[in-house]
Amino acid sequence: MTTPVIDLNSDLGEGFGQWTLGDDDALLSIVTSANIACGYHAGDPTVMRRVCELAAERGVAIGAQVGYRDLPGFGRRFMDVDPRELVNDVVYQIAALDGFAKLAGTKVAYVKPHGALYNAIVHHEAQAEAVADAVSRYDASLPVLGLPGSAWLRKAAEAGLTPVHEAFADRAYTPEGTLVSRREPGAVLHDPDVIVARCLRMVTEGVVEAIDGTEVPLTVRSLCVHGDTQGAVEIARRLRKEFDAAGLSPTPFATPAAAVPAGAGER
Amino acid sequence: MTTPVIDLNSDLGEGFGQWTLGDDDALLSIVTSANIACGYHAGDPTVMRRVCELAAERGVAIGAQVGYRDLPGFGRRFMDVDPRELVNDVVYQIAALDGFAKLAGTKVAYVKPHGALYNAIVHHEAQAEAVADAVSRYDASLPVLGLPGSAWLRKAAEAGLTPVHEAFADRAYTPEGTLVSRREPGAVLHDPDVIVARCLRMVTEGVVEAIDGTEVPLTVRSLCVHGDTQGAVEIARRLRKEFDAAGLSPTPFATPAAAVPAGAGER
Amino acid sequence: MTTPVIDLNSDLGEGFGQWTLGDDDALLSIVTSANIACGYHAGDPTVMRRVCELAAERGVAIGAQVGYRDLPGFGRRFMDVDPRELVNDVVYQIAALDGFAKLAGTKVAYVKPHGALYNAIVHHEAQAEAVADAVSRYDASLPVLGLPGSAWLRKAAEAGLTPVHEAFADRAYTPEGTLVSRREPGAVLHDPDVIVARCLRMVTEGVVEAIDGTEVPLTVRSLCVHGDTQGAVEIARRLRKEFDAAGLSPTPFATPAAAVPAGAGER
Amino acid sequence: MTTPVIDLNSDLGEGFGQWTLGDDDALLSIVTSANIACGYHAGDPTVMRRVCELAAERGVAIGAQVGYRDLPGFGRRFMDVDPRELVNDVVYQIAALDGFAKLAGTKVAYVKPHGALYNAIVHHEAQAEAVADAVSRYDASLPVLGLPGSAWLRKAAEAGLTPVHEAFADRAYTPEGTLVSRREPGAVLHDPDVIVARCLRMVTEGVVEAIDGTEVPLTVRSLCVHGDTQGAVEIARRLRKEFDAAGLSPTPFATPAAAVPAGAGER
Repeated sequence: MTTPVIDLNSDLGEGFGQWTLGDDDALLSIVTSANIACGYHAGDPTVMRRVCELAAERGVAIGAQVGYRDLPGFGRRFMDVDPRELVNDVVYQIAALDGFAKLAGTKVAYVKPHGALYNAIVHHEAQAEAVADAVSRYDASLPVLGLPGSAWLRKAAEAGLTPVHEAFADRAYTPEGTLVSRREPGAVLHDPDVIVARCLRMVTEGVVEAIDGTEVPLTVRSLCVHGDTQGAVEIARRLRKEFDAAGLSPTPFATPAAAVPAGAGER
Repeated sequence: MTTPVIDLNSDLGEGFGQWTLGDDDALLSIVTSANIACGYHAGDPTVMRRVCELAAERGVAIGAQVGYRDLPGFGRRFMDVDPRELVNDVVYQIAALDGFAKLAGTKVAYVKPHGALYNAIVHHEAQAEAVADAVSRYDASLPVLGLPGSAWLRKAAEAGLTPVHEAFADRAYTPEGTLVSRREPGAVLHDPDVIVARCLRMVTEGVVEAIDGTEVPLTVRSLCVHGDTQGAVEIARRLRKEFDAAGLSPTPFATPAAAVPAGAGER
Repeated sequence: MTTPVIDLNSDLGEGFGQWTLGDDDALLSIVTSANIACGYHAGDPTVMRRVCELAAERGVAIGAQVGYRDLPGFGRRFMDVDPRELVNDVVYQIAALDGFAKLAGTKVAYVKPHGALYNAIVHHEAQAEAVADAVSRYDASLPVLGLPGSAWLRKAAEAGLTPVHEAFADRAYTPEGTLVSRREPGAVLHDPDVIVARCLRMVTEGVVEAIDGTEVPLTVRSLCVHGDTQGAVEIARRLRKEFDAAGLSPTPFATPAAAVPAGAGER
Repeated sequence: MTTPVIDLNSDLGEGFGQWTLGDDDALLSIVTSANIACGYHAGDPTVMRRVCELAAERGVAIGAQVGYRDLPGFGRRFMDVDPRELVNDVVYQIAALDGFAKLAGTKVAYVKPHGALYNAIVHHEAQAEAVADAVSRYDASLPVLGLPGSAWLRKAAEAGLTPVHEAFADRAYTPEGTLVSRREPGAVLHDPDVIVARCLRMVTEGVVEAIDGTEVPLTVRSLCVHGDTQGAVEIARRLRKEFDAAGLSPTPFATPAAAVPAGAGER
């Protein structure tokens, strides 16, 4: 029996100008994949560059955390963007981040939608197709991260992309294997022991206990951890430690490209 | 004696959302280099993609028209941006545009600063160095367009970039070879015959008649033409026609990269 | 029998920075109510001030054209804004415009939602209630303009505001008295003769012929005309002329406040 | 001899969307005047409303903290805005904030420029005049806060406004009575005992010890305290306590308007 392989991903680079959010430095010592905001709902060029450089130094894969163009709403409000424009919004964000990955001697290694866009394309076929189209036009070799069963991963597969399944370390699941809505009681888990035990089981047994106690099968290549509070960082750190101790050291699902000297003439 | 080589460049893709500006389609049949706005002072992803595709189709070189982050002011207001942040603002813009150039099967071929940034870095050493640093970090093989004698072209050369001299088709010059300020009378020329004659002389003789009647030597590889009014487009069209008739068919100074199939896996 | 009273309203002040849209000057000689954009989806302080001053000079009522915070989308994309935040977004816009109305010696006289917000609150109860709440908190004496039968006008009435019914001069109606979707053929009328005849009939007989030929009763105190194309301005001008000729000279539904000397100390 | 009267002012409401900055709640229990950001360099409608409501509840005067339109730079970068547009930018901000003051049953009571605008108009005559013009057009009874000797306060006085002198609790002064640049060592004071002693002396004796040890006369009606770090809040709290203990309980220089019932029809 082969040892399962798992990745830890987290949202990073979500500051903007004078404002900071989360502890990028701490998380870059914990996770193996960094979903870096690209300036549309969070992030600015200086944050993007710094996080890309740190990620590259530490061997953390750089992912484009693409979202709606909505700084005041942090990308958490659904926007009925015309899919023909959404394609271009997504290309813009991936390409901009790729510039900073290039400065850091690497490349964007994957794409993960953020916030309301992430939620919308679980079901919104046209927007899901637009995001998949953007990635495949920009670089069809990029894997994409998302919820198993989502329109997003289905459209990505149809576009020839590699869909990667993620699970959420601190969220409750329904018996159908979807996330319990944040509006429901018990949707977010807080007990580090429970979280660690669940995550280990998801990875080693491919099973998660749903909110009603039933056991739900689950395939997962990456676990999403949060870092926006001190408590969340502590849980992520603990999780990393336990995975390492269990011989399941997290590994990026998307190998960062071999370093290319930045600024080297290419033509 | 060799035939002089000249390029025609113009600002394009300066619409934003519902708002349009200038006649991109007409200009793309006239110029050989398109300075395309990258979303910081003008331009949005959908405009950027469309102009890149048209430019690629017609063999027009794609240049990054980088500027201050100031949509309300169209990048025409000096901003005292910290050079350490300006580097990153410029990388962001070039990289984002490069994404759409890639979709169109080509690459960003050069960089030209816009508006207040263009004017500032004639003299502002620290900002000039920041823009040069950005280009050289992103892709040191990119030539850059600017005013002969500017801090910008000097810093670019020091950074190992190829500076390209441009002249302005419809602007009056001082005896020192700099532009007459727009606040002075006679700063902008309107007579198509005068403009055409001057431009031909600049290119073939390397001389321009200054506002006081003296003759000023001038080296120029690219002529900047405007397209923001119907009259300006007409002048540009006339200029192109006369250059062609004189056997001086404009040629891009920056050869667009050989087409790379967009979306082709690269790693 | 009393002479019916009608108002003509139009969207104005929809430029932004360097970009212009529509012919504000021409429309301010035609309409009696100006829906002025407040900077969230269009409009900037300099445009707002200029249009307010012209409107005040010509006795045109100043209305706050409030929308989603979405300049790139011109407010035409639905945004799932939390109603608790939408209230504040709307107050911000009305108050900002009121500043320029004050400089022009008058006040904001009414509120009309724009674009996707206008469409959303035909049915979206929570957003409709939020917009009504904003107006009633800011100034409960302000009338509000909208579609008869909409959640928006119902919520406005419940909040103690005065709902004012508008009809669209150039749009086809369903037998139920709602607008034919722009996606359907025939949704927008272009023949000036037809438009004028329909509008006169709406006002004098309270009837409009629906797209299927049936006659639909309609109460209307204001007619919305467009000015974003040269043709649209011509139709609006013609309509105004015919109404005047028929003895139905348009009158604002919201009397602009008596002029208060701007800058006069108030405390 | 009369007891001197002093006010404590601080920057508040500087969050934006998901991002927070400083401890608004704590400061609103300490200061007597709140400089509230208006959305151009910081602040959003929901923050503005909340801070206005708290300020009104606690009898803290509401001031418009007006700045350049520069969210990414937090208004800390000089912008060469055309004075004819700057007037309108400032009116927009004051009026928007006044809307939330109105909801809280009060009015904007004064204006204080922020960041790079504050610094620019110490010397920049045309921008200083533009800001003064904006305030006087909006409401000529509003006092304005600034640095003694600045072009800003001089232009404000010429425009008929009431200039109010402020001093900085934690900044070193030159022998000429201006602030020591932040780039110089010793520019910012950190020792709470020193700060308290200096502030008491400024207020009771009208004297401050300059960085070279000389004594400089100073008139001050308001002291600016900071709240962007935990340490800064502690110093402000201590200062308030010591002033109270010395019988110099801080009092706003600008009496908030008598409460007007929000939403009450005014016409």
